[in-house]
Amino acid sequence: MASTSSLTLSQALLARAISHHHGSNPSSSDRVVSLSTHSIPTFSGLKSSQSKPSTRVLHRRRRVAESNRQIRASVAETPTAVKTTEISLVEKSVNTIRFLAIDAVEKANSGHPGLPMGCAPIGHILYDEIMRYNPKNPYWFNRDRFVLSAGHGCMLQYALLHLAGYDSVKEEDLKEFRQWGSKTPGHPENFETPGCEVTTGPLGQGIANAVGLALAEKHLAARFNKPDNEIVDHYTYAIVGDGCQMEGISNEACSLAGHWGLGKLIAFYDDNHISIDGDTAISFTETVETRFEGLGWHVIWVKNGNTGYDEIRAAIEEAKAVKDKPTLIKVTTTIGYGSPNKANSYSVHGSALGAKEVDATRKNLGWPFEPFHVPEDIKKHWSRHVPEGAALEAAWNAKFAEYGKKYKEEYAELKSIIGGELPAGWDKALPTYTPESPADATRNLSQQCLNALAKVLPGLLGGSADLASSNMTLLKMFGNFQKNTPEERNVRFGVREHGMGAICNGIALHSPGLIPYCATFFVFTDYMRAAIRISALSEAGVIYVMTHDSIGLGEDGPTHQPIEHLASFRAMPNILMLRPADGNETAGAYKVAVLNRKRPSILALSRQKLRQLPGTSVEGVEKGGYTITDNSSGNKPDVILIGTGSELEIAAKAAEELRKEGKAVRVVSFVSWELFNEQSDAYKESVLPAAVSARVSIEAGSTFGWEKIIGSKGKAIGIDRFGASAPAGRIYKEFGLTAEAVIAAAKELI
Amino acid sequence: MASTSSLTLSQALLARAISHHHGSNPSSSDRVVSLSTHSIPTFSGLKSSQSKPSTRVLHRRRRVAESNRQIRASVAETPTAVKTTEISLVEKSVNTIRFLAIDAVEKANSGHPGLPMGCAPIGHILYDEIMRYNPKNPYWFNRDRFVLSAGHGCMLQYALLHLAGYDSVKEEDLKEFRQWGSKTPGHPENFETPGCEVTTGPLGQGIANAVGLALAEKHLAARFNKPDNEIVDHYTYAIVGDGCQMEGISNEACSLAGHWGLGKLIAFYDDNHISIDGDTAISFTETVETRFEGLGWHVIWVKNGNTGYDEIRAAIEEAKAVKDKPTLIKVTTTIGYGSPNKANSYSVHGSALGAKEVDATRKNLGWPFEPFHVPEDIKKHWSRHVPEGAALEAAWNAKFAEYGKKYKEEYAELKSIIGGELPAGWDKALPTYTPESPADATRNLSQQCLNALAKVLPGLLGGSADLASSNMTLLKMFGNFQKNTPEERNVRFGVREHGMGAICNGIALHSPGLIPYCATFFVFTDYMRAAIRISALSEAGVIYVMTHDSIGLGEDGPTHQPIEHLASFRAMPNILMLRPADGNETAGAYKVAVLNRKRPSILALSRQKLRQLPGTSVEGVEKGGYTITDNSSGNKPDVILIGTGSELEIAAKAAEELRKEGKAVRVVSFVSWELFNEQSDAYKESVLPAAVSARVSIEAGSTFGWEKIIGSKGKAIGIDRFGASAPAGRIYKEFGLTAEAVIAAAKELI
Repeated sequence: MASTSSLTLSQALLARAISHHHGSNPSSSDRVVSLSTHSIPTFSGLKSSQSKPSTRVLHRRRRVAESNRQIRASVAETPTAVKTTEISLVEKSVNTIRFLAIDAVEKANSGHPGLPMGCAPIGHILYDEIMRYNPKNPYWFNRDRFVLSAGHGCMLQYALLHLAGYDSVKEEDLKEFRQWGSKTPGHPENFETPGCEVTTGPLGQGIANAVGLALAEKHLAARFNKPDNEIVDHYTYAIVGDGCQMEGISNEACSLAGHWGLGKLIAFYDDNHISIDGDTAISFTETVETRFEGLGWHVIWVKNGNTGYDEIRAAIEEAKAVKDKPTLIKVTTTIGYGSPNKANSYSVHGSALGAKEVDATRKNLGWPFEPFHVPEDIKKHWSRHVPEGAALEAAWNAKFAEYGKKYKEEYAELKSIIGGELPAGWDKALPTYTPESPADATRNLSQQCLNALAKVLPGLLGGSADLASSNMTLLKMFGNFQKNTPEERNVRFGVREHGMGAICNGIALHSPGLIPYCATFFVFTDYMRAAIRISALSEAGVIYVMTHDSIGLGEDGPTHQPIEHLASFRAMPNILMLRPADGNETAGAYKVAVLNRKRPSILALSRQKLRQLPGTSVEGVEKGGYTITDNSSGNKPDVILIGTGSELEIAAKAAEELRKEGKAVRVVSFVSWELFNEQSDAYKESVLPAAVSARVSIEAGSTFGWEKIIGSKGKAIGIDRFGASAPAGRIYKEFGLTAEAVIAAAKELI
Repeated sequence: MASTSSLTLSQALLARAISHHHGSNPSSSDRVVSLSTHSIPTFSGLKSSQSKPSTRVLHRRRRVAESNRQIRASVAETPTAVKTTEISLVEKSVNTIRFLAIDAVEKANSGHPGLPMGCAPIGHILYDEIMRYNPKNPYWFNRDRFVLSAGHGCMLQYALLHLAGYDSVKEEDLKEFRQWGSKTPGHPENFETPGCEVTTGPLGQGIANAVGLALAEKHLAARFNKPDNEIVDHYTYAIVGDGCQMEGISNEACSLAGHWGLGKLIAFYDDNHISIDGDTAISFTETVETRFEGLGWHVIWVKNGNTGYDEIRAAIEEAKAVKDKPTLIKVTTTIGYGSPNKANSYSVHGSALGAKEVDATRKNLGWPFEPFHVPEDIKKHWSRHVPEGAALEAAWNAKFAEYGKKYKEEYAELKSIIGGELPAGWDKALPTYTPESPADATRNLSQQCLNALAKVLPGLLGGSADLASSNMTLLKMFGNFQKNTPEERNVRFGVREHGMGAICNGIALHSPGLIPYCATFFVFTDYMRAAIRISALSEAGVIYVMTHDSIGLGEDGPTHQPIEHLASFRAMPNILMLRPADGNETAGAYKVAVLNRKRPSILALSRQKLRQLPGTSVEGVEKGGYTITDNSSGNKPDVILIGTGSELEIAAKAAEELRKEGKAVRVVSFVSWELFNEQSDAYKESVLPAAVSARVSIEAGSTFGWEKIIGSKGKAIGIDRFGASAPAGRIYKEFGLTAEAVIAAAKELI
């Protein structure tokens, strides 16, 4: 497939060369800008200007080396010999990409031109020659996925989407780069720009997302492909920068990619030796190739990423031939390639070049066009992607129809994964409980829910960061997703929380019907918070199964006991923080989590056993806060006791005692603040009447934020210090999280 | 030094062998427990029992391998030939360690016996033969540092501290393992147990702390050592587990350790092939050695970590000989070594063995003693560490006195670093500002403070995660801390936020006078939150310089714009979240941060320029919240406007307008909620009188938590959604963070 649309360098060199220097005749619609000098650039000019940064770099290197005693090979490659008056169509396309990036950053006076200028050759080859996609349907299921892990270079991707014919990035969108309401924000955002698969920018997230996308492909291919019909079959490409490589998350995710043998994951490492602080020699002298070999990847080094088109093509071909390992193609490039005075320096990383340098770069690369101009021949060349993409999708649709005729059951299942519709009545599978059901830890009740859902949700898959037997996340009907058993659904993430979260984001954004869950101890959300935030921002409905959710875990002590975590997620936009109290609430939490496909959910679950409480319900959970028991009338209880999770039973016990003394007591479960906040004012008043200021909350976590619920006259019982190492019961008592304390507080307020 | 206290294996074999099997005569004070069977254990018994897990493991492996198609070398080593009736003193000491761990976990019925049983040989060799320390002064400056990165195995360290004579771990402390108020909590905590250097448990943190400790040593040695007096000279040892290796943070920190050439960092990798989910083959098949070679480490593999004492000794010797690289000694061990039925399985990782298996292990290892018993010969053997340690410290003190005679200035400086006293009047160095001083970004004002402090605080050092020129953290008077310029103080962390935070924890806990700071964009605290939490828990006074603290950063968009971060840290115990508004407040924030050596500080700083406001002051910052301007009388303003950081000037502007309309308006800066919370009720009332319910807050972040300050009748202006990509001014306007909005809200309330 890909080979039919590829263009070899020799073919490219035969293509129409630019001949409109020296008053030559550009195609009539090409808008030539008047350069500020009449000395016309030539490739010898490019050559000499290229040698300049090289000299400068070596000089700068030398200074760095004085402290490092280590000099790395120069990265500024001398351009290969090209005839002075000729420029291949490929090179012209590559320069188009470069200048779209330069011009957009210049107009915004903000952004990152360096990466697009350096990675334009990779971008061109991927989007013009290699990748299979349909510009008019960015969501076509079997498309190749591309992730710009070095997301700051997003103008590269916007330029490519524009050239390829995506409706999301028109010329006017390029001109609105980084402006309010535009489709071209400062970093790639899947929810703003169709064609961007994921949301990147925070470094390292993207490559981990790419591992998730590749995992999804491998899993679905193994489940659904037939010898006569390989209906799932695409690659995942990524560009990662030096910054991504330094981030621990990328090592975590890449270790897993190697372990899983994700052969269709191909990552380009933009080895440009420059990060914001300058030459990477000041902080990054490891041998990346060796590390990746250790991680089980196939590694290729393209030494001339600036003009070595055939080297890049050959590397991709080699990568595709290696089917049992992911491939890292280290491509040595020059950041800001083409800029005579700023290439190969940090100054081209994150700022506009400035009018003078833009001009110099235009001359240097022989680019006579006005800003944002795409030459006609380039437009024409790229225009084939719209019909070709449509044809690719049509052919696949026909293939899928064939598949449907022969494999009805699998077809229906795959269709629901592609489309994202939940099977009718799926939530009936969730278990129900009565107050007579045995007490149990919500982590165990969670496992009952997960295993019930696994039977009805074809897209449910996930696992734990090496705590499966503690988080209770194993799907009993399935085996382990592994290199040679990728059709299975229990994913073993190892102790890699951050990578796990970002991989799940990739899985969730691969197909609407994939519902990834992942698990660790609640306190270790700290390790993966950056990925959880991206779930929330990028509308990835990952389910976070977070057990051991309080001091109730006992002896492991304060390093393992979450305190501030509930508050910290309640403050985060677009996320559901759920803390169920028993079986029915756990089932309710799963119902909410599964239904919210564009909003991630965090389930905080207990290690310790909890009573099944009267009055809890799935419907209650869906409202976020609700009354579970009440002996008052007229919506005027003497006091309202509010609890969440494991403390709801303490509130309930306190209520029983207070009622014995004749008090009218309402007990409210506050399982999800976000959901409660979305209810009508009338509903809120029915649960928390404004007239009742006697309110006591109890929660084994920070009291931060509880004033909103209990009002300034209420009393919040919680923990505003770190935990302690001791049996759970003892800590509860020592910290005053008891029914007695609730009763005492209530009496003070009544 | 170390060699004088080391014991070779041959020496050890000559030591008194145990001969009290078969009714032999234990030394009178040895408390022999009656074993439940009379069949007496022998080493042939050990041998045969050892072969059992090996078989089991291979069997289990085979099953795993069915999905993985990959079998790793067996880890269960056959014990080396030892005469049946003899046990070396070393082995007896090692078994003492094992059984102290077994017995403590058994008594607590909670804990992790597996690691101490497997790593006891490493532990014995380190604490008995290699390390230089003074048990009676755990804070002796020049001690070798030891970090148990796999902190769950803390009974290993408690047993070692006990044997070595530390007062922090007496026999009664071992018996109180994991109990309320004990000195032996569930994971190592420096603030509970002198002798534990840092707080570990969350995996990967410890090895990163160790990198910080080794950095501190290398830095201080370079600054203070003289050819005739190497006053700073110690090693840093660490034990890291498979879990630590999987965590991204460890790769980040180890990449830096390699880059910096920390030759005196020696890390043992406890390669036991078992994690909580079972055999590491299910999720961790990378070649760790290759990765570390890529990271620039020297790597040694000890294949028999169970009984290969001489191999371990030789590896340490080799590691010490490699002076320009850190060393990873991969030691293949058997988790739970000695337990006939649970060794080499995950079941020995994190649970008590159970009475039956404890019994079987006693028999298997020939251990006839009752729980917690330390045989007299072992006691006697270890007892030399108290006098030897005292002698080591005395010799060093004499050396330091010599140093002081010759190098007065350096002596005073080093002494202040060792002791932690701040130089008199240091805070006078902080810059001051008037309302006429030019407007500036607080990140720039922060740089002025840092550079002023660098002149007066000998222990100030730090840097940024590749954002030095954005975070404005360079100390102009110093160069870069690098492999060959370790005396310098600008640390270049690369894009490794998590490793950076944990390394700074190590630096802070190395010496009381070291004051590390580190920097990134505020939003990326998400990447390092686990390390920041450990700062707070372990009382490491790291200064977190967090710039680009709101939507005010503009075009980089929502991935880069913090929203929930202020709230998330306000909810965290023992940390100071400071958001200064201008120059004086930035200086005040630094004063607070430097003074709080046992509480980390986070400074949220603006990218954008801010006015120098009338009324701001260092003293005000020290109170957390204070009135900057007020035209009311009798503590009865019509309305109180409250702002923090960049929004304080908006509040001030709104106040000016309202006052023009005749209103009595107070403007309050709420720079640190924690500090305000610590003030007297009278002070709080003087700033926020209960009678004034008309309160408006404005802050470019989540409104979560503000109800506590503004009361239920107040109005919080903030951002409860993700940010956007656009110029900052536009976002402020679109999000309604304007003086007009404050005025409108105030008028509604008055």
